[in-house]
Amino acid sequence: MIKAAWKYGLPVKSITDFSANINPLGPSRKLLSALSNNLDLISSYPDPDCTELRAELAEYLGVKKERLLMGNGAAELIYLLVRVLRCRRALIPIPTFCEYALAVLSQGGEVLEIPMSEENGFRLPVDEIISSLPEVDLLILCNPNNPTGRVTGRKAILTILEKACLYGVMVLIDEAFMDFVPRRELFSVISMTGQYTNLTVLYSMTKFFGIPGLRLGAIAGPEELLSHMSAAKDPWNVNVLAQVAGVAGLKDYEHMQNTCRFVNCEKKFLFEQLASIPGVKPLPAATNFILVDIAGSGFTSVGLTEQLGKQGVLVRDCSDFNGLAGRYLRLAIKTRPENERLLLALKAVLQGENK
Amino acid sequence: MIKAAWKYGLPVKSITDFSANINPLGPSRKLLSALSNNLDLISSYPDPDCTELRAELAEYLGVKKERLLMGNGAAELIYLLVRVLRCRRALIPIPTFCEYALAVLSQGGEVLEIPMSEENGFRLPVDEIISSLPEVDLLILCNPNNPTGRVTGRKAILTILEKACLYGVMVLIDEAFMDFVPRRELFSVISMTGQYTNLTVLYSMTKFFGIPGLRLGAIAGPEELLSHMSAAKDPWNVNVLAQVAGVAGLKDYEHMQNTCRFVNCEKKFLFEQLASIPGVKPLPAATNFILVDIAGSGFTSVGLTEQLGKQGVLVRDCSDFNGLAGRYLRLAIKTRPENERLLLALKAVLQGENK
Repeated sequence: MIKAAWKYGLPVKSITDFSANINPLGPSRKLLSALSNNLDLISSYPDPDCTELRAELAEYLGVKKERLLMGNGAAELIYLLVRVLRCRRALIPIPTFCEYALAVLSQGGEVLEIPMSEENGFRLPVDEIISSLPEVDLLILCNPNNPTGRVTGRKAILTILEKACLYGVMVLIDEAFMDFVPRRELFSVISMTGQYTNLTVLYSMTKFFGIPGLRLGAIAGPEELLSHMSAAKDPWNVNVLAQVAGVAGLKDYEHMQNTCRFVNCEKKFLFEQLASIPGVKPLPAATNFILVDIAGSGFTSVGLTEQLGKQGVLVRDCSDFNGLAGRYLRLAIKTRPENERLLLALKAVLQGENK
Repeated sequence: MIKAAWKYGLPVKSITDFSANINPLGPSRKLLSALSNNLDLISSYPDPDCTELRAELAEYLGVKKERLLMGNGAAELIYLLVRVLRCRRALIPIPTFCEYALAVLSQGGEVLEIPMSEENGFRLPVDEIISSLPEVDLLILCNPNNPTGRVTGRKAILTILEKACLYGVMVLIDEAFMDFVPRRELFSVISMTGQYTNLTVLYSMTKFFGIPGLRLGAIAGPEELLSHMSAAKDPWNVNVLAQVAGVAGLKDYEHMQNTCRFVNCEKKFLFEQLASIPGVKPLPAATNFILVDIAGSGFTSVGLTEQLGKQGVLVRDCSDFNGLAGRYLRLAIKTRPENERLLLALKAVLQGENK
């Protein structure tokens, strides 16, 4: 935000950020007051075992607490897992979150990418994944997928998982945005981590609970693997305020329900409005963000991002997502006034001349 | 604290913790109000470059900001450095902070230990270190040393450093407690990181600034090495409140000065009082903690720690420090009423019967 303000010469407060996929309602009031009331905890070391938080989260996710390891954001756990597995070659369907590939490459591994395309609705290429399994030691799937917003059903995930088991391939399913998915029980496999020795599932608390600045994530998986991961990191990785926020957030069930209702309602509104704009094609999304194909607009994604930025509307140009050409924007779902501001700005730019 | 309260059946508030070496004045008021005033930042991602904090810290430490990498506590950076260096064999004088050896072992390296002893005042064995350099690829020194409290002068450090350079050995100096050392300019080598290609210096903001719960540390070293370290971790490792706290702490020069004065005054008091108790021998310390030899007390360190714990006084039993027999306690320097409580409890236990 600050860098964007500087770039476009605008006051920070005049900018609306659709590029980060965070709960549009923000963190719950109960979470914020838990933080205010516990600021004095910063003078003591954090609990390395995250005892209270892990117990709360285990109950919420339906996972034994022994099969959960907390992280300084889910991103830390991606790097940690890839390292502990000494991953040599990872299979990653693209486009997807870039940190998977960066984590694999950063420790000397290779990445085998399988492209997904809009023509197939960015559907997970189950058969191609299965036939590539013998060539890799790790498969990484983002479900629902960032940036496409597409969610894959449990059945397809389990089919892949069983084949991966035969080939001795470890599987990481990143469910960072699963809390936003309606009827998540049809899609999430996190509660099944006890049943498969090759299944690890990543969970993020930064998006749904609105605390990306505090960093908080978890991974569910086999106890032995988690204990290796735990030994390969420093003991105090999860700061004490993140632990307080996590516990408070999980206890505020009302805010969680409101968030789901709110996001679904605004998603419907934003999707329909976007679909009515000529040259703009929003893609169906299970998430709190929408991928938009702007090929018909006459703009490149770089150009349109720049024009919107000048109006104080930050969007995510997806041209740097490996596997996406320069014709996609990713838009976070925000509040009604914010979404209306986006729509107005988009219409103004598209009707203007500055292509 | 909570675990201790549970163990000894005492209310948390009735416990005084001398086992953690944190600024006895706590974080500054300005730091705390900066946190209160910026809680809303938790809804945005942290700045991966820690731009503002790094600039402030660079100025304070006299290091170019390009030669500083911030971490989620100094402990994260120990693990990261050892990993990026692919350390096969590290030389570590003991007793010292255990995370160095754990980090080396966790990624398959070996540790060569050189013992230091009370008989020699836990002096750094410079000649032995130099003669062992050909056998290792990394040397780790804690200066001032935890738990002995002994500080080594710059000249000895530089002598070792130059020899290490000849043998191609990387050197990590952990200056986590350097801010507490009177006339630190005689001891710190952090401002010299630009002059040696094999020198890295670790800096902690959790102890002196009183924020162990928030996690904040830094490493100074060659730019190329730091850029490898940066690529080997996730981008958002330093949470936004730690960044806010760090900037506010560094700007509160008055609190920093007060801390130094306070710690030195209380250290003198505690040292003299301890020295007057029969069977208890405090060792000279440059730090905000004192190592105490209790061999003459008739207690083991385990036994004395247990007896003090029952009175709500937590001390650090050093029997699990590799290289220290079970006759040492480490005591943090706290406020006068707290230090007096420790002294009273210690006298009561030593005069009692429960050996």
